[in-house]
Amino acid sequence: MRSRIPKVLHTLAGRAMIDHVLDALAGAGVTRPVVVTGHEADAVEAALGGRAITARQVPQRGTADAVRKGLAVLPDEAGTILVTMGDAPLQPSELFTALLRQQTEADTVLTLVSAFVDDPAGYGRIVRAADGRATAIVEDRDADEETRRLREVNVGTYAFDGTWLREAIARVGESASGEFYMTELVALAVADDRGVGVLLADDAAEAMGINDRVVLAAAEERMHRRIAETHMRNGVTIVDPGTTRIDAGVEIGQDARIEPWTILEGVTVIAQDAVIGPHAHLRDARIGPRTRVWASVVEESTVAEDVHVGPFAHVRPGSEVGPRCRIGNFAEIKNSRLGAGTQQHHFSYLGDAEIGSNVNIGAGSVTANFDGVAKHRTVIGDGAKIGVDTMMVAPIHIGEGSTTGAGSVVTRDVEPGAKVVGVPARPIKIRKEVGSPPPDGR
Amino acid sequence: MRSRIPKVLHTLAGRAMIDHVLDALAGAGVTRPVVVTGHEADAVEAALGGRAITARQVPQRGTADAVRKGLAVLPDEAGTILVTMGDAPLQPSELFTALLRQQTEADTVLTLVSAFVDDPAGYGRIVRAADGRATAIVEDRDADEETRRLREVNVGTYAFDGTWLREAIARVGESASGEFYMTELVALAVADDRGVGVLLADDAAEAMGINDRVVLAAAEERMHRRIAETHMRNGVTIVDPGTTRIDAGVEIGQDARIEPWTILEGVTVIAQDAVIGPHAHLRDARIGPRTRVWASVVEESTVAEDVHVGPFAHVRPGSEVGPRCRIGNFAEIKNSRLGAGTQQHHFSYLGDAEIGSNVNIGAGSVTANFDGVAKHRTVIGDGAKIGVDTMMVAPIHIGEGSTTGAGSVVTRDVEPGAKVVGVPARPIKIRKEVGSPPPDGR
Amino acid sequence: MRSRIPKVLHTLAGRAMIDHVLDALAGAGVTRPVVVTGHEADAVEAALGGRAITARQVPQRGTADAVRKGLAVLPDEAGTILVTMGDAPLQPSELFTALLRQQTEADTVLTLVSAFVDDPAGYGRIVRAADGRATAIVEDRDADEETRRLREVNVGTYAFDGTWLREAIARVGESASGEFYMTELVALAVADDRGVGVLLADDAAEAMGINDRVVLAAAEERMHRRIAETHMRNGVTIVDPGTTRIDAGVEIGQDARIEPWTILEGVTVIAQDAVIGPHAHLRDARIGPRTRVWASVVEESTVAEDVHVGPFAHVRPGSEVGPRCRIGNFAEIKNSRLGAGTQQHHFSYLGDAEIGSNVNIGAGSVTANFDGVAKHRTVIGDGAKIGVDTMMVAPIHIGEGSTTGAGSVVTRDVEPGAKVVGVPARPIKIRKEVGSPPPDGR
Repeated sequence: MRSRIPKVLHTLAGRAMIDHVLDALAGAGVTRPVVVTGHEADAVEAALGGRAITARQVPQRGTADAVRKGLAVLPDEAGTILVTMGDAPLQPSELFTALLRQQTEADTVLTLVSAFVDDPAGYGRIVRAADGRATAIVEDRDADEETRRLREVNVGTYAFDGTWLREAIARVGESASGEFYMTELVALAVADDRGVGVLLADDAAEAMGINDRVVLAAAEERMHRRIAETHMRNGVTIVDPGTTRIDAGVEIGQDARIEPWTILEGVTVIAQDAVIGPHAHLRDARIGPRTRVWASVVEESTVAEDVHVGPFAHVRPGSEVGPRCRIGNFAEIKNSRLGAGTQQHHFSYLGDAEIGSNVNIGAGSVTANFDGVAKHRTVIGDGAKIGVDTMMVAPIHIGEGSTTGAGSVVTRDVEPGAKVVGVPARPIKIRKEVGSPPPDGR
Repeated sequence: MRSRIPKVLHTLAGRAMIDHVLDALAGAGVTRPVVVTGHEADAVEAALGGRAITARQVPQRGTADAVRKGLAVLPDEAGTILVTMGDAPLQPSELFTALLRQQTEADTVLTLVSAFVDDPAGYGRIVRAADGRATAIVEDRDADEETRRLREVNVGTYAFDGTWLREAIARVGESASGEFYMTELVALAVADDRGVGVLLADDAAEAMGINDRVVLAAAEERMHRRIAETHMRNGVTIVDPGTTRIDAGVEIGQDARIEPWTILEGVTVIAQDAVIGPHAHLRDARIGPRTRVWASVVEESTVAEDVHVGPFAHVRPGSEVGPRCRIGNFAEIKNSRLGAGTQQHHFSYLGDAEIGSNVNIGAGSVTANFDGVAKHRTVIGDGAKIGVDTMMVAPIHIGEGSTTGAGSVVTRDVEPGAKVVGVPARPIKIRKEVGSPPPDGR
Repeated sequence: MRSRIPKVLHTLAGRAMIDHVLDALAGAGVTRPVVVTGHEADAVEAALGGRAITARQVPQRGTADAVRKGLAVLPDEAGTILVTMGDAPLQPSELFTALLRQQTEADTVLTLVSAFVDDPAGYGRIVRAADGRATAIVEDRDADEETRRLREVNVGTYAFDGTWLREAIARVGESASGEFYMTELVALAVADDRGVGVLLADDAAEAMGINDRVVLAAAEERMHRRIAETHMRNGVTIVDPGTTRIDAGVEIGQDARIEPWTILEGVTVIAQDAVIGPHAHLRDARIGPRTRVWASVVEESTVAEDVHVGPFAHVRPGSEVGPRCRIGNFAEIKNSRLGAGTQQHHFSYLGDAEIGSNVNIGAGSVTANFDGVAKHRTVIGDGAKIGVDTMMVAPIHIGEGSTTGAGSVVTRDVEPGAKVVGVPARPIKIRKEVGSPPPDGR
């Protein structure tokens, strides 16, 4: 990978490779996963966050040696043991399920996964007898010309009879380079005349490990296609699946429409009939029915039903936008709550604010929430009309139904129904007069 | 489709499937289209907006029953009758033209369209005699193993001798499930010894109907490629056709350049040598020669020649931007007219405004066009210099060649050539003085 | 191409076709390139900017005539002469290197490049003798049916023995249409019994010329894939190579991550561990380690290490952003320098400004740098706190550690440590008081 990041921590669709493998194993009913680490073991163990038992292989002396280290931390029980690679994140649960079933039902001591590839160079070839039984895995370097031409290769995923594995692992011989290889176990099973099963993977590209970033990008593409197809079959319209990136954990309701160049990340949930994109980026966002998010960013926030967001709006973490709100171009919201029907059509900033229903936020308005030391809250009551270019110097409370004049700098609380204007803003009598500007630049 | 939206109203390249089919029929000279509706008939009829006669099939008793309902509303004339499916929107006019020609020129009573597909499961197979003549369509459920292996399938598009069709439709027998199938008509034509013609579609993917959203997305991709290729062959550079989405009705001039991640929707017209994108989104926009629209949104507006828009600008509906204007980042224009050479480089909002030529709009300036009840207009004369952070409280008229000071709140009309400053803004003598800030933040 | 732009000036990955060809020739050690121009000769010569000797072909009388014109301006030396087409920009250096080697090592007088294509219509076919030697190139129009079926075609790239070429070119006969064709040289070499070598290109799509914009778009896609793969193999993560556009000259450090829908143009340099995109557009930008540029535009500017830019920020030409700065949504910077740790989180404009370290720029703040005639500079000292909606009327100097109030219009220099408020802004005593608003809307 030419990377300082451990390979299994490179991500696909928002999750580390190793997490995809553990997800698929969990999906196949593997209950006690063990991860054997070597290179950058600290980083890998930290990333696992306790979801697997770990064992360290120091020094790294080959795949069979890694299995030995793994067995050492696993309770000595009977049953089937599955061994796979942390860098093969596209292997589906179904492959593991099929492998476990085949090994359990067969009278063999191991079953391995094979795949047909166009370019087998570098892989161990599966050698089969006339009756189809696998008789050996021959490493590329040891293969004669005829064997080299075989295109069925060893993927690196196995299921073992646990009792046999614990016994046989001790018998694996050291290679010339001082390492211990899994393929020796196949040789032992054949020598023991205990039988070797082979499960041929339907789709080689899914079964194989990832060895460089070109393959990583192809795998990412493939995983995104797989996720997009699942959503489409569930009744979501994805206009251009090739340019839409949806993380594995995202939920999307029926008849929602995802427009191109859109990213849905993390634990995002999109309700039915919502329209997201084009050019939208949502992370850990919860979007209500019929809401449209267009060319905008929403992070760690909730947007209720029938809202329009964008284009070019930014809803930052900790925000809640109420039903029927309008969040227009160049609007920024951070850690704020907006009541139903509130309108923020233009460039403006609402931060650390509690905003009522049917409030109108004029263009250029700002909650001045930071005094250079701490953040303070702004509270705006229902139906208030915040005039264009109003500066609200927090902590401050702007009363229900009140109005602020264009260009006002509000430094003191505003009474309900009052109107304030000027720099700093002062209350004026509520009557139509010259100099009392309208409040909005909708 | 797993959708509450009727299938034929799902869209491709900005138009409902059924509209694409009607467009292609019109292109082939079909003058009296009839749409037979069933599921969600009200919604489909409303969407058609009168472009076809409609007939309802209640209850839905099979395809031949639908044709019977259609014939009931069609004047009883001689001639050829074409029957096709509303969910096969990629069928080109050329296919219908060829089908009509073949049926008209042949002595058969019907001609059907076939296609070779990789996976024929679920489709009716075309059975041919040794001489190549079609002898039957065998439904998948009725097919024996040999027939099941046939890969030539019935697309569902037919041309009939109208006189024969009207007579034969009454003879179609009821199936075990109580339905009436089109394929029975083929059997009747064979039984009548009247001959069945087959037109093999060149491109199966174009001929076939859409049955789920995965296929819908593939069809959308295909239609966009088709549109993009037509423009490219006409002399438009489309840098990345795979990530450019151009609606069917869009016009683009020679040597215009469409950059990636761009959407051109509706009745958009792009003049020659314009550069649109990357990241642009235009809907019902008319763009002049040599104008560049970059990472911006233009809706229902006209932008003249030699204008720069963007990045991150938003021209909202009802706007007209004059020649040589500069509309910069975070600029918003709504329902406004800008004269030649006017500059709005920075974040600011112009709404319901009439702006002259060579006007300079300072950063942060806003037309406060809404008083909480109604919208009012702002008029700015030629050559005016609107200082940074100027609030223009509409209705208001800012005279030709006048200047507003930084941070001014303009609540009264400004005389031509005058300069106003302050909150609210008042005229000052025009001489160079401390406190008379320059007008722009270009 | 249906274009008013000369074909060889159409661009791929940010460079004209002809420049790609000259780059590949230079990479193969061709030291004295000659470009023969015809159509739009002035434009092509201007675009070359002196990187090749040029010769004009007026009138245009065929390819061999063009070579004659080229030879006329080339010093009369021995050695190998390579002839290729300016519209075949995907030909790699390796192809030219292999061609020159083959011609130099062989005893032939010319070697030509061939390719196998699916649709050979329109191309000259390579006719070979039983021993594999090429015996003729037969133009499509002159080919009999058998020859027409040959799928090995003449690409249009040749290496010649220079001495022979100079002698033979005079012998090329005029065609019926009065033109002189390169293929005649092949006939002459065969007639002279001097032997014709053929180098079969591995990849026809790379070898062939570009004849319309559909092929141009495919070539652009291919070149971008090639560039992306090179970066990936060097240790860069490119999440979606299909929707990432990286110009030929861009440098990217190890473990940098390029997110989708991103353009890197010109002489852009990205340091290791930087994260660029999604939706980013960089042109001639230099980005430091660990810096993130998200959904933003950076032009002709330098951004140091550990900076966050975006989403929706615009760094315009001539800017330098210091380490650990935060440039947030709707922030615009033009021709300005920002010191380390300075924060500009919200909509605001900094132009022609010199800004110290750890400065806080409040939402809505603007440097009013243009007085309608000239641009003036703003200087802000370290640790200053620029309050929300502060207008800084340049030329102006705002002292170190000073503070400006919300909505202030600063028209005179501010002393270090002072606080100014109001319109126009005046100093106030530094104590906590009502009416002294906090400076930021972070």
